[in-house]
Amino acid sequence: MRAGPSQEEIRRHNLGALLRHVHLGGPTSRAELTSRMGLNRSTIMALTADLTAAGLVREELPRETGRAGRPSLVVRPESARVYVFAFDVGVDRLVAARVGLGGAILDRRETVRRRGPFSLEEIVGPLAGFARQMRRKTRPDTVCVGAAAAFSGGVNRGNGVVRFGPNMGPAEDVPFAEEMTRRLAFGMPVKVGNDANLAALAEHSRGVGVGCRDLIYLHGDVGVGGGIIVNGQLLGGHAGFGGEIGHMVVNPKGRLCGCGSLGCLEAEVGERTLLEAAGRVPGAVSVATGPGAVPVAAGPGAVSIAAGSGADGHETPRSGADGRRERLIGRDAVRAVVDAADRGDIVAQAALSRVGDWLGLGVANLVNVFNPEMVIFGGMLREVYLGSAAQVRSRLAVDALSASREGLRLRTSALGDDATLMGAAELAFAPVLADPLEALARAGS
Amino acid sequence: MRAGPSQEEIRRHNLGALLRHVHLGGPTSRAELTSRMGLNRSTIMALTADLTAAGLVREELPRETGRAGRPSLVVRPESARVYVFAFDVGVDRLVAARVGLGGAILDRRETVRRRGPFSLEEIVGPLAGFARQMRRKTRPDTVCVGAAAAFSGGVNRGNGVVRFGPNMGPAEDVPFAEEMTRRLAFGMPVKVGNDANLAALAEHSRGVGVGCRDLIYLHGDVGVGGGIIVNGQLLGGHAGFGGEIGHMVVNPKGRLCGCGSLGCLEAEVGERTLLEAAGRVPGAVSVATGPGAVPVAAGPGAVSIAAGSGADGHETPRSGADGRRERLIGRDAVRAVVDAADRGDIVAQAALSRVGDWLGLGVANLVNVFNPEMVIFGGMLREVYLGSAAQVRSRLAVDALSASREGLRLRTSALGDDATLMGAAELAFAPVLADPLEALARAGS
Repeated sequence: MRAGPSQEEIRRHNLGALLRHVHLGGPTSRAELTSRMGLNRSTIMALTADLTAAGLVREELPRETGRAGRPSLVVRPESARVYVFAFDVGVDRLVAARVGLGGAILDRRETVRRRGPFSLEEIVGPLAGFARQMRRKTRPDTVCVGAAAAFSGGVNRGNGVVRFGPNMGPAEDVPFAEEMTRRLAFGMPVKVGNDANLAALAEHSRGVGVGCRDLIYLHGDVGVGGGIIVNGQLLGGHAGFGGEIGHMVVNPKGRLCGCGSLGCLEAEVGERTLLEAAGRVPGAVSVATGPGAVPVAAGPGAVSIAAGSGADGHETPRSGADGRRERLIGRDAVRAVVDAADRGDIVAQAALSRVGDWLGLGVANLVNVFNPEMVIFGGMLREVYLGSAAQVRSRLAVDALSASREGLRLRTSALGDDATLMGAAELAFAPVLADPLEALARAGS
Repeated sequence: MRAGPSQEEIRRHNLGALLRHVHLGGPTSRAELTSRMGLNRSTIMALTADLTAAGLVREELPRETGRAGRPSLVVRPESARVYVFAFDVGVDRLVAARVGLGGAILDRRETVRRRGPFSLEEIVGPLAGFARQMRRKTRPDTVCVGAAAAFSGGVNRGNGVVRFGPNMGPAEDVPFAEEMTRRLAFGMPVKVGNDANLAALAEHSRGVGVGCRDLIYLHGDVGVGGGIIVNGQLLGGHAGFGGEIGHMVVNPKGRLCGCGSLGCLEAEVGERTLLEAAGRVPGAVSVATGPGAVPVAAGPGAVSIAAGSGADGHETPRSGADGRRERLIGRDAVRAVVDAADRGDIVAQAALSRVGDWLGLGVANLVNVFNPEMVIFGGMLREVYLGSAAQVRSRLAVDALSASREGLRLRTSALGDDATLMGAAELAFAPVLADPLEALARAGS
């Protein structure tokens, strides 16, 4: 019930809207911007001139034009000049990247991590180091306009405090955003969001969900998370913890979840459950190499499946030296189950069928509650869905209301393993897209 | 990514914002409006003058002022002059009301209905008749600015087609909004929304949820529905079917739901389940009086608990003539179970405990997915919650993530049985609050 915006606010809004067009849509002609934004040509010219003067876009002749007459100038984001730092803190890996306006990854560093409890320093140290390495390599005329991280755990939107979940270590509140900001010392705050939430945002902005106003993104890592777009906006909830669909109870007499409940979606469709059902996590056998192997889950039958890695090391799938079935972990292990099922392995088929059944029930619940246009399977749930689509669909047919599933599309992530990282980049770009000149002034100061 | 609004759009927005202030907040001084809307005094004066000239508000001296000096004029909605028609189509009753700007019910008609399948005419006929009766009694200077209905069933937002649910008759798409519009012939379209969705809107606008940007409203009638407010907006979903939380499966090996699934929240916490568990629906005994008694649920052990009523009749709770336990239906029956539990009836206590357990699990799932600030229990779930709050809270403590339930408030509906009707009124008022002068011009034409 606030009053309407002033002329100056409108101009800022329009500058941001134009920049967002070229950031998400790529190089766009002035004529197209005029028609898409519903503004007249002289306004588009003025806005483009302002953004050009600020070094955020440049105008050039289109590479090729099939038409006669003077071609409309194309407005192109200054991708090599204007960038953000994006970070991804997963259970298995740490990634840092420099992402240019327009979404191109300009530079990237990654380290595979051992699974299990870890200290804040073990995350912040490598990420800050990567960022400084990448920054040293930039040209003097470049400008960093933001930094943000995708974090595998609960994130308090207000203060950037993250809550370690059961897959990261003991539940604990950690001032991640504050510490990253201090360690980077780039003169700008590092924002942080839940990884699945940010992946949803990325798929919505530049992935398979472009144009959908209502979508649900399910993310499988070691745990299961989600990001939900409602009427074009990410569902954050009261404090930013919204979207924890992995802890929706689907089977109240089911498996013990790391959160302490029985039968959470995560407990029924997570990586560990699938691998166990497929007979690929033999009881109490560790495949860890080197020190640092730790139990992944509590409760009876806990199994160590951690693999050690150095700060720059890359873990590789390995075959058991004793000739038994490969004991892969993570995405590779899930892929191996799907491949085995494709080749006719009935144990793998049964495992996928069981997991697909619970996955379908969880999706049906979400479809009834949200009536989304699209459900996207990402992370390791991409593989699970591809291996159990028939089961998922058959559950949906039973448990989702016909009205709510009419027109529903089931899709897999378009951005793949980079969805979380690209979501962090979008979070980092948000201020410059909301108010380009103001954000640039802050970045330059 | 549209361009910003024009000056004229800003003025319309501000007129609507001011009108919404006095519609929801009641009589408000110019000084308060100036501070709340963040506009200067002369703008508020000009807006008020426009709304006064249109007959939507009037200015007057406050009744009493404790301060010295010239008191600020109070802006008051023209409640007796500007009104909407609001309708409520429930499983048990049909209600029509004339609701004035500001939310006062000026006139009201209600009929109790038999439960069970019915034709479109059996709904539209009585409601249109009521509306015409009420309209004939209005003064010539009054103006009707809208009409809307709350409907117990799925509603397609695009075309106002309603989908009868299992509690209303066989699943069928019915052009309710179109038929109501035709029969009323008031020269304006009748809008329609799902009853629980609209009740959520009403609680958010002028009930217990005022000021909450993220809330979940659970509505118990014969079935269980819901309305969800995300970031201040009603969650509609892709086609308007969002919020069907009654068909979230919480117990996959549970009771058969009218929708065909097993263990939906509705099947585990609905009126029929509670009454059965409390031993208050003896097998296959009908308490219907007169013709028209029909089975309420399919499947083995189906029981007739319908009660007949005339078009204007009121059903009254009755004691069994044979001296057995009272066989009430609907809200009264649920209240009787809660009262019995309070008096120490262990069967009633066990029934409430069981239902409260499932209700708590359902709420925990929603809390994990939405991280709401408030959960509101309405309709017959108000009584169920009051009788099982300890059970609900204990389930939440186990199954909701600690981060998501921090600061969560559990509340009962403030608007009670009128929540759905008041939600319909808000839907009907929406156009005049969005663009007052334009809506008034359309109404007067």
